[in-house]
Amino acid sequence: MKACIRNQQTLETCYQINAGRLENNLKSLAVFGANQETGGIDRPFGSEADLNAREFLQALWEKEIGISTRMDAIANMWAVLSGCESLPPIVLGSHHDTVPNGGAYDGALGVLLATEVLQTVKENGISLRHPLTVVSFAGEEPNPYGLSTLGSKTISGKLGKDILIKVVSKIDQSSLQAAVAKAGGDLEMVEEDRLRPGEISAFLECHIEQGRRLFDKQLALGIVTHITGIYREKITITGEANHAGTTVMSDRRDALMAASAFSLEFEEYVKQCNSEDVVGTIGSLEVFPNAANIVPGEVELILEFRTSQTAVSKQFIRELDRIAEQIEKQRKVVIRREVILDQAAVAMDRQIIDVLNKSLRKLEEPCVSLVSMAGHDAAHMVNFTKTGMLFVQSINGKSHCPEEKTDMRDIIKAGNALLQAVLILDKELN
Amino acid sequence: MKACIRNQQTLETCYQINAGRLENNLKSLAVFGANQETGGIDRPFGSEADLNAREFLQALWEKEIGISTRMDAIANMWAVLSGCESLPPIVLGSHHDTVPNGGAYDGALGVLLATEVLQTVKENGISLRHPLTVVSFAGEEPNPYGLSTLGSKTISGKLGKDILIKVVSKIDQSSLQAAVAKAGGDLEMVEEDRLRPGEISAFLECHIEQGRRLFDKQLALGIVTHITGIYREKITITGEANHAGTTVMSDRRDALMAASAFSLEFEEYVKQCNSEDVVGTIGSLEVFPNAANIVPGEVELILEFRTSQTAVSKQFIRELDRIAEQIEKQRKVVIRREVILDQAAVAMDRQIIDVLNKSLRKLEEPCVSLVSMAGHDAAHMVNFTKTGMLFVQSINGKSHCPEEKTDMRDIIKAGNALLQAVLILDKELN
Repeated sequence: MKACIRNQQTLETCYQINAGRLENNLKSLAVFGANQETGGIDRPFGSEADLNAREFLQALWEKEIGISTRMDAIANMWAVLSGCESLPPIVLGSHHDTVPNGGAYDGALGVLLATEVLQTVKENGISLRHPLTVVSFAGEEPNPYGLSTLGSKTISGKLGKDILIKVVSKIDQSSLQAAVAKAGGDLEMVEEDRLRPGEISAFLECHIEQGRRLFDKQLALGIVTHITGIYREKITITGEANHAGTTVMSDRRDALMAASAFSLEFEEYVKQCNSEDVVGTIGSLEVFPNAANIVPGEVELILEFRTSQTAVSKQFIRELDRIAEQIEKQRKVVIRREVILDQAAVAMDRQIIDVLNKSLRKLEEPCVSLVSMAGHDAAHMVNFTKTGMLFVQSINGKSHCPEEKTDMRDIIKAGNALLQAVLILDKELN
Repeated sequence: MKACIRNQQTLETCYQINAGRLENNLKSLAVFGANQETGGIDRPFGSEADLNAREFLQALWEKEIGISTRMDAIANMWAVLSGCESLPPIVLGSHHDTVPNGGAYDGALGVLLATEVLQTVKENGISLRHPLTVVSFAGEEPNPYGLSTLGSKTISGKLGKDILIKVVSKIDQSSLQAAVAKAGGDLEMVEEDRLRPGEISAFLECHIEQGRRLFDKQLALGIVTHITGIYREKITITGEANHAGTTVMSDRRDALMAASAFSLEFEEYVKQCNSEDVVGTIGSLEVFPNAANIVPGEVELILEFRTSQTAVSKQFIRELDRIAEQIEKQRKVVIRREVILDQAAVAMDRQIIDVLNKSLRKLEEPCVSLVSMAGHDAAHMVNFTKTGMLFVQSINGKSHCPEEKTDMRDIIKAGNALLQAVLILDKELN
């Protein structure tokens, strides 16, 4: 540390995260849920892989770094490095679960970067005024319990015990309560264990971009200004199951053909919005009874629409009504729709955005501001604390797939930027 | 039987099946696989319900009627009433398995009508020259092993041991060999246990129509002239799985949207053929990874096309090539196609058709000739014996669903027609 005695400014800037250690932790965490066949990772909330990843993180925090950890009622994991003043903590983190056949960086990178920053602060004996906390949220990704951003939604009061207690897995009907208990939580306590405003000084989440914008601009980092709104409907199309040979075409009420027509109408509408900030997807679809020689009687699908523009979102829902009505008439089917997610777009905190800009200037790292088209736990933290997000480049913009990758050089830049942001926030915040 | 002594003609005509007994047997068999929730029946080949149904049939034949039964290598069930001359048997029957959430008549009716005819012959002491045999074929319907008309295809030599031995359940990867063994068969013996030409004098299958033609004409019975050809492809559409929020619409290679476009093009073509003898269906479709926030990377579907006209079938396959090529270009996906069934249309035996006409005239029952748009075990028997089919009206043309129903009055007519046909065939055939 000889070179670091001239002034506080240089002193702070020269603190560096430990790249090798971080890289090893990324490799170690990627083992849990690794699918040898696909090369992807299957680590949904409640799975064996999730439980093993939790054990790994707890051991890393408690044994390796030597800080105290806490599991809250919904099984979010917290690790705290105490500060020298009695102030609410600065929290860094993300989630450690993955989508089916997902990658090694979505969520995991944010948790391990936060961990690395904390470990760097601790081993350099940097004394912060605020406690520095790492969080790994439970079930951020869609999971068999049908609740994404489960952990942050619950502590922010958007999911209550009354709802959670009734939730079961669509795979084996096992209860969410049992899964949460296995992970170390307790659904009975979620109401008591909610976040209170002021309980946290700031929340900062680092995450891979999962899009091509940074990659196409060849930038390592981006500062998030907004998180997109996400709207999801579960749509059930009911026609009539009948024999595939003896039912003439004109007599059919084919639920799958109706779903196909519905899907293309929906896609057509989304495309003509012609904006990078408007996307729509039908990612999940099931056919009943799903036999080769039976005209499908029912189709259940999940439709999703994303935009950060409220007006566009309102118009979209009116459009969906029109499409549903039209398909019902044309195809002699009944369409039931249920809104299963309606998450408004949110703005990141102005001060956090400024602090991130200062950090990047300090590191002489160019960056860009952008809207996050993916939902994140950060979206649920905005009501309780100053919240911000830092994006790291995704190679080829790929994510939620085995090819998901972020360059280690960019990861190091993100880690040091996060460290600088913590040091500045620690001074600025009270 | 006092009224029955004038002449052989009257004597034979006055033989009547026992309606009450038949109705009870129909009710008893319908219990196996009954789904309380849907009101339908789940009795696929190899299921617990299939095994229970087999026990019931064996007990009915051996204990109740007192005739010897035999299980062949592929687990088709045979029950034989010996004749007074050493001639090959006249065989009546169908199958006892069902589609998922199917009805109580498809297959089961044919087996129990055959049983009732045999029991009527036996208890009236009618001495036939030919042995009279009842058969219940194994796995006629699509099943987890992906082989419909399993039993008749195998004994007719269309499925060999080399293929069968490799087949596993798509549900739990258990082997077909194990399922056949559980049912009382032995895959090791299928080659030895094949049908040989001349081994059977005639095969007559009674089955519900499963369409609206008899119902719309208010006829109880129909005589089948042809069985439709059935062509099936397993089609795999591969696009690219990616994040549903961060992948802009123009960058997507969405396998489900491609499948939707493919489905509608296919439906459009089938509709414009504009013939009751041409139908096409996509009954089974699966999406991967099937998560709400992932653009679908792959879709696997089963497409089916039916017609009794060979020329139409040839033209259809050319059309399918065109559609696949077009969708691949438009949607930047790769489409793999595999023919999993290519069953040519078959004609029923002229003599059997005549005998059925004679029987119905005897009973003064009006009827109509029609093409069967459903595949049947009978289609595989034509190469080995004189084969015919009798259709019974399906109320509202419904089948392969819980609403599948046939009026008991029509069932009685079918039973007596079948009985008369046996008596005539016994005289005519050598």
